[in-house]
Amino acid sequence: MKLQVAIDRVSLEDAIEMAHRLDGLVDVIELGTSIVKDYGLEALKKADFKLEKSQLLIDLKTIDEGEYEFNKGYETSADILTVMGASSLGTLHTTYEIAQKAEKNIFIDLMEIDDQKVNDMTNMSNAIFGLHHSKDATEAFDAVDTIQAFHDNHPEIKKIAVAGGVDLEQARKIARQGIADTVIVGSKIAGASDPISTAKKFMEAIQ
Amino acid sequence: MKLQVAIDRVSLEDAIEMAHRLDGLVDVIELGTSIVKDYGLEALKKADFKLEKSQLLIDLKTIDEGEYEFNKGYETSADILTVMGASSLGTLHTTYEIAQKAEKNIFIDLMEIDDQKVNDMTNMSNAIFGLHHSKDATEAFDAVDTIQAFHDNHPEIKKIAVAGGVDLEQARKIARQGIADTVIVGSKIAGASDPISTAKKFMEAIQ
Repeated sequence: MKLQVAIDRVSLEDAIEMAHRLDGLVDVIELGTSIVKDYGLEALKKADFKLEKSQLLIDLKTIDEGEYEFNKGYETSADILTVMGASSLGTLHTTYEIAQKAEKNIFIDLMEIDDQKVNDMTNMSNAIFGLHHSKDATEAFDAVDTIQAFHDNHPEIKKIAVAGGVDLEQARKIARQGIADTVIVGSKIAGASDPISTAKKFMEAIQ
Repeated sequence: MKLQVAIDRVSLEDAIEMAHRLDGLVDVIELGTSIVKDYGLEALKKADFKLEKSQLLIDLKTIDEGEYEFNKGYETSADILTVMGASSLGTLHTTYEIAQKAEKNIFIDLMEIDDQKVNDMTNMSNAIFGLHHSKDATEAFDAVDTIQAFHDNHPEIKKIAVAGGVDLEQARKIARQGIADTVIVGSKIAGASDPISTAKKFMEAIQ
């Protein structure tokens, strides 16, 4: 299983520094939506986010204007861009095709969508499907149960990622469960007093 | 009825210039999502978007992290920020409360959501509810019929805005219909060879 670490709500300089410190230590480094909406893709294009070993995901959260946003997004160093499952099927198909042509990855954020909509997307077989608990949601979130239920309903979906307050113990359980392709951790690593040693602990936990 | 003009996919300098040229000529000037995602809220805070007469709407398209995005968004000159109806109810309530406390407006983008979800939002009575045809959707969109059907289903919603390829003739029909509070026009004004005279024609058409 892969570990993705999200960097959020910091200055662009701090995001760059954190990305390079984590490069090679974790599998995927995410620039969260706050980084996109605070500084913009033009700044992300110019900034040095070229990573040696880790993949770079930019959490664009495209929900319309798929062609414009994905073309712009892939002009950065991003290997993976995100689109909302709540978009129209037109947006989903457009972004998927752009990702395929660019030989890049696409991550579909499943926040707040129902099973019927997921069924309409299962033909996008190379996409990463992200189970995502809204940061603003008040209900509890059991990642292991959520993954199992999703996998039972959609066994044809190969790449599942999961995000939403995952701690070390949950990461370990998700790895043991053996279904998810990627677990996403945010402030519990990027906001830790020692992000490097914390990232290493998470990597060990999911082996 | 009000006229809102969306500025999209131009440089920040051109967006600033266009906003000031349209200030006072139209009711609401929108900085589209492309301006946010290309240049970021930090740049929009520093740029001179202080308008004399028109209101400024920033099409943030918040879909999570409502508190962070709306607090940041209102640090700009924005009078109105947008949230996706497809967000969790947690995000919708958080952004609505921040807007109310800041004595600013909130625009809920209804793209790709069903009637049941709209019913969950009707208590946000000061919000502007935006009927929005996805730019990536392939089906035709009849604004007048869409407004009528929405009004029949949700007569308690007072402020309706409508967007999606509206031309001069459609704007006239929407005004005559007398339901919508705001009609939104994008490239047909901001991308016209003479945006000022085109904006004036739209304003006359909706009187």
